[in-house]
Amino acid sequence: LTVQQNSAAVVGSAALQRFTVLGAGAFGTTYAKVLADAGRDVVLWARRESVTADINSTRRNRTYLDDVLLPDRVRATSELEQALVGAQAVVLAVPSQTMRENLAVFRDVMPTGVPVVSLAKGVEIGTGLRMSEVIGTVGHVPAEQVVVLTGPNFAAEIAAEQPTATVLACVEHDTAVAVQLACGTGYFRPYTITDVIGAEIAGTAKNIIAVATGIAEGLGFGLNTAASLITRGLNEMTRLGVELGAEAPTFAGLAGLGDTVATCSSPLSRNRRLGVELGRGLSLDDALEATGALTEGVVSCRSTRDLAHRHGIDMPITEAVYQVCYRHAGPEQMIRSLMDRPPTPE
Amino acid sequence: LTVQQNSAAVVGSAALQRFTVLGAGAFGTTYAKVLADAGRDVVLWARRESVTADINSTRRNRTYLDDVLLPDRVRATSELEQALVGAQAVVLAVPSQTMRENLAVFRDVMPTGVPVVSLAKGVEIGTGLRMSEVIGTVGHVPAEQVVVLTGPNFAAEIAAEQPTATVLACVEHDTAVAVQLACGTGYFRPYTITDVIGAEIAGTAKNIIAVATGIAEGLGFGLNTAASLITRGLNEMTRLGVELGAEAPTFAGLAGLGDTVATCSSPLSRNRRLGVELGRGLSLDDALEATGALTEGVVSCRSTRDLAHRHGIDMPITEAVYQVCYRHAGPEQMIRSLMDRPPTPE
Repeated sequence: LTVQQNSAAVVGSAALQRFTVLGAGAFGTTYAKVLADAGRDVVLWARRESVTADINSTRRNRTYLDDVLLPDRVRATSELEQALVGAQAVVLAVPSQTMRENLAVFRDVMPTGVPVVSLAKGVEIGTGLRMSEVIGTVGHVPAEQVVVLTGPNFAAEIAAEQPTATVLACVEHDTAVAVQLACGTGYFRPYTITDVIGAEIAGTAKNIIAVATGIAEGLGFGLNTAASLITRGLNEMTRLGVELGAEAPTFAGLAGLGDTVATCSSPLSRNRRLGVELGRGLSLDDALEATGALTEGVVSCRSTRDLAHRHGIDMPITEAVYQVCYRHAGPEQMIRSLMDRPPTPE
Repeated sequence: LTVQQNSAAVVGSAALQRFTVLGAGAFGTTYAKVLADAGRDVVLWARRESVTADINSTRRNRTYLDDVLLPDRVRATSELEQALVGAQAVVLAVPSQTMRENLAVFRDVMPTGVPVVSLAKGVEIGTGLRMSEVIGTVGHVPAEQVVVLTGPNFAAEIAAEQPTATVLACVEHDTAVAVQLACGTGYFRPYTITDVIGAEIAGTAKNIIAVATGIAEGLGFGLNTAASLITRGLNEMTRLGVELGAEAPTFAGLAGLGDTVATCSSPLSRNRRLGVELGRGLSLDDALEATGALTEGVVSCRSTRDLAHRHGIDMPITEAVYQVCYRHAGPEQMIRSLMDRPPTPE
């Protein structure tokens, strides 16, 4: 494998070989395994020494990804500087909502001029910044080096080596290709795109649609309703994305359609489960308590609605989810509001 | 409700009021209920007098749609000519594979100049003609009057009044709008498009993708794989459709994405169930025996593959399903062939 060298953003003339993954949660650990299975040398950093000691001694990350045997090419450490020595690419595998504080530490020790792959999705609460924007402004990483990994990617399924397609988005195509060539395996097939905005808008908006399909399920509705919500949901997120500079095909691809279908279908999706509780008539507070944690769709529907209003984009599903979450609209009312609109072309 | 009158294809100056539905299977009966709930007067024709007598005396079609009470506005008859007296629109609700022989009878008694709504999907075996083409050539109905109804529409869910979005496709937009205004209800929301080719190609190709996702399921794979197959499947059917004159957005809409997601998600889908048996290692003959009937995806993958070859379109999922069905390729081999292709942009 050789990497095309049309861009200064890609380091060296050989394929990327030494990766450092920062964050050893389920997805970070899984992606470390993918990279190792693709033949790369991987250092996996975790803050907690108990986690890295476990990985190095048992070849398992029993805290976050039990049952998965990690290849020998994955070496764990909790020494950040040491983890990054010789890294030809860095993978950011920390949660979206702690990305900023982590970057404030990482940026002083991260090598410059190397691809930085972000596994974090969504937007930052408060600022509304997309993850790649946070990485650029806080982490001081030029956009040409920031690669966003997204798509229908449940960590547990990838770790079990189930066939998975993914998307690597970077404004500089050569950077995405370099990472693509470094991480493709028999079970993990990455595609490249240059539409970072689209990838990130889709990664945020899909959670709203998952809440909406959950609400419909909680009301007792079946596949006609779910499929209609997914389709019309992708339609409205595409309209918003295009207005913000994204490309429509991104939403018809793995980052849009693929991730949305997977998220809306998964019994494990927290967003969908929250929707089910709302559909059964629980208030937002009670539904959040029942699902047990911060649920992105609840945050996203508010910020996405604001964005849509500012840009004059009609997003009826986002609006309906917002009304159920924050304005005590009944869930049946949400469905009714979607069905009672005037007849239109598709 | 008034109908815009820009087209000679639309009859009269008032909304369409008198519909005749030809065929009282589950979907024909369900659509008769939808029309009646929308305020239309409906005559439902079935060949068998036992079926129509049952409907008229019990308000139920216990042969095909048990448990659903039909509105009084639905009147059933097995007298074909009588059924069509005064019809302002005709609905063809007979199976795709008997459409030709039925039309040879219907065409002599069908009123001329009225919208003809087709509930039949797919292509005719042998000729490879799309249903609208069969209706045109055999039924002598001008294309401007043929409206294809499609989308994520399981009859049982519509009959249970679950919120459903649907597509009405007609080359003459005013005809589609006339039908749209006549059949929208609180639970049934029709959108109009003019891309009949796209609607029909999607309606055929989605069954191939459902077989493919079934195969993956039979192999024990989860949502990453299913979502990837759905996404890449829509991608390849879009490329074929556009080559044949369809419009790409149709495939991102209810007729493409919506119907594909619903079909691939449904435990009731015969195509998906057949795929599951193939994925478990059964031969095509044994899998067909296990699922019990003609399965469209098996026919479609052959005809669609031919079409793709003739037009030089690469359709890897269709090819893989064909190889499993007709060339004794192992299902794992199918997945491997999809994953081992050279890295590309999306």
